Amino acid sequence: MKRILILGCGMVGSTIAADLSDKFDTAVADSDRKKLSSISQNFNLKTEIIDLRKKGAIQMLIKDYDIIVNALPGSIGYATLEAIIGEGKDVVDISFFPEDAFNLDTAAREKNVTAVVDCGVAPGLSNILLGYHYSKEKLSSFACYVGGLPFERTHPYQYKAPFSPSDVIEEYTRPARIKEGGELKIKPALSEQELLNFRNIGTLEGFNSDGLRSLLITMDIPDMKEKTLRYPGHAEAVRLLRDTGFFSSDEIKINGMDIKPVDLSSKLLFDIWKLKEDDDEFTIMQVFIDSEMKRYNYFLFDRKDKETGFSSMARTTGFTCTAVVNLLAEGRLKHKGITPPEYVGMDEMNFRYILNYLSERKVAVEFSEQKL
Amino acid sequence: MKRILILGCGMVGSTIAADLSDKFDTAVADSDRKKLSSISQNFNLKTEIIDLRKKGAIQMLIKDYDIIVNALPGSIGYATLEAIIGEGKDVVDISFFPEDAFNLDTAAREKNVTAVVDCGVAPGLSNILLGYHYSKEKLSSFACYVGGLPFERTHPYQYKAPFSPSDVIEEYTRPARIKEGGELKIKPALSEQELLNFRNIGTLEGFNSDGLRSLLITMDIPDMKEKTLRYPGHAEAVRLLRDTGFFSSDEIKINGMDIKPVDLSSKLLFDIWKLKEDDDEFTIMQVFIDSEMKRYNYFLFDRKDKETGFSSMARTTGFTCTAVVNLLAEGRLKHKGITPPEYVGMDEMNFRYILNYLSERKVAVEFSEQKL
Repeated sequence: MKRILILGCGMVGSTIAADLSDKFDTAVADSDRKKLSSISQNFNLKTEIIDLRKKGAIQMLIKDYDIIVNALPGSIGYATLEAIIGEGKDVVDISFFPEDAFNLDTAAREKNVTAVVDCGVAPGLSNILLGYHYSKEKLSSFACYVGGLPFERTHPYQYKAPFSPSDVIEEYTRPARIKEGGELKIKPALSEQELLNFRNIGTLEGFNSDGLRSLLITMDIPDMKEKTLRYPGHAEAVRLLRDTGFFSSDEIKINGMDIKPVDLSSKLLFDIWKLKEDDDEFTIMQVFIDSEMKRYNYFLFDRKDKETGFSSMARTTGFTCTAVVNLLAEGRLKHKGITPPEYVGMDEMNFRYILNYLSERKVAVEFSEQKL
Repeated sequence: MKRILILGCGMVGSTIAADLSDKFDTAVADSDRKKLSSISQNFNLKTEIIDLRKKGAIQMLIKDYDIIVNALPGSIGYATLEAIIGEGKDVVDISFFPEDAFNLDTAAREKNVTAVVDCGVAPGLSNILLGYHYSKEKLSSFACYVGGLPFERTHPYQYKAPFSPSDVIEEYTRPARIKEGGELKIKPALSEQELLNFRNIGTLEGFNSDGLRSLLITMDIPDMKEKTLRYPGHAEAVRLLRDTGFFSSDEIKINGMDIKPVDLSSKLLFDIWKLKEDDDEFTIMQVFIDSEMKRYNYFLFDRKDKETGFSSMARTTGFTCTAVVNLLAEGRLKHKGITPPEYVGMDEMNFRYILNYLSERKVAVEFSEQKL
């Protein structure tokens, strides 16, 4: 039986660990003892305390495992992935670190490692869908609209974040790289707002965000974009904060103290944006993939599982990840080196496996196609 | 010839000094040498440097003058007025300090001083208009809508301030005291937004602000309110900041430093809200005074004087003040002690004098009445 270690027992990491514990010799590692004891009461898995400040801690920890899942925060994600690759371990990464994973490609190939990166819902599942169609025919465009939202809309932000405000603010400030007419274009974050209607949910607003990542390098498609979905009004509200300077990381002097406005804003927004335990929430993703003659349309809608308490974000991200862990464990991922999810989707059997895996866990992805 | 001293040579103080210099032995005092030398080049007046940190500086300075105008910032306004009264000098005050002026009433009476306070446009002229009608008949309601705005509307605030952002923020946070059905009501700042249309200007939005001040004590009128006017959208934008906590004066800890969010916000908004030298701007005031049978309607619209460079805010505030200085100089203000402008308006001759004085300076106040 393969031995799997999940690094990080946060919302997503714990969902991943729970899902894998049925089938594998599973362990989950975190620095927070409380989180570990909570999950070990409900699932058949081992727990490991990690002290991330200790040099070599990751290396020591992972050597007894066959496959590693990196579910640590993005800020330490890249260094962790580098350490995992250094130990020659296959890995599925959902830490969404800001660095370019391809910088580790040579190292991963040398160690004969398969390192699947960005393996969540978007990036992640969206890349898998695109990879599949890309392997079949020439594509002209890709558009992904995605968001995680609370059902309860509270003025003025109408938003709750399943992760820290500073990560959300990062999405609202980092310029978005998209493809237009075959060219790489840099658009301001929050730009090109458009309204879209969704059944049962109503009108949401999409705006450019920097989510294409590996697709910008791996896909030869002239038009590609990712837009983040929020309730109408949210983008306007956070633009106001951004344009006033509240998201700036440049220090300014206040009564002799050097302050980064974004640090204050993160603090103030933390309570307002905090997703509470009993907040009902959903994840929505609409993907349009166009070839010359056809549009392929994928629609995902998932909500919190009240039985398990797993949020839709943890479910859609986590189950995409665990589907790929299963493929890895079964030796069905042949690609060595850095492996973005679009590579995984290029294999039709694997593509079908993942959609089926999600469907078994009631993450429903609707598919339709139309002639153009 | 009466000797008049203006304390403070800011936007309004300098306009007051310029206006009085024609007719009186006028001096203006400030701590800023540059401001003084600029005005003394253009007008026939004396200048005095004041060092406000020096104890007794105000007392020393004012003893050679007959009438004092207090045009210093509100933060030091009350202490300055107290010093002026202590020296037994008649005074017109436009420092709009937050303290209750009536606490100085006994001291002023003992010194046989007339101290006209809050003598700008609103409070100020609005009080004078109300005082006049109050002296004539029983009134049922008073409503004052007032604002100073730039002609150029820039997203998202559509606003420029002729004074520091922290004073504006104060308006957006201090609860508004109004009268409703004969009772004092405390309403949140920025509450009860309503849209109003104005000829040539278009639609503006009014919201509660705490501007009634002395009227809450001196007038027995069941319904009274003041609303601040801004372009639609402004209130929503500043509410967002307020409701997120950016206007809070409670210190919060950021990386070990104690920061008041309002200090950061004032700093960030300073540049965005700063009224530049060549920004064209206007002041608008709509006053409704109702008796049982009639509505009296006053409408003031004033814009920057391009010839003199005096802003509409400086003109409307300053010329109301200088009209009252003239009344004081001519011995036409009989009331002793703290004298809010409504007391000045109760004398019909003085009321007419002030409107005529403003009209001569092209601050036009339109009047109409209608049966109710």
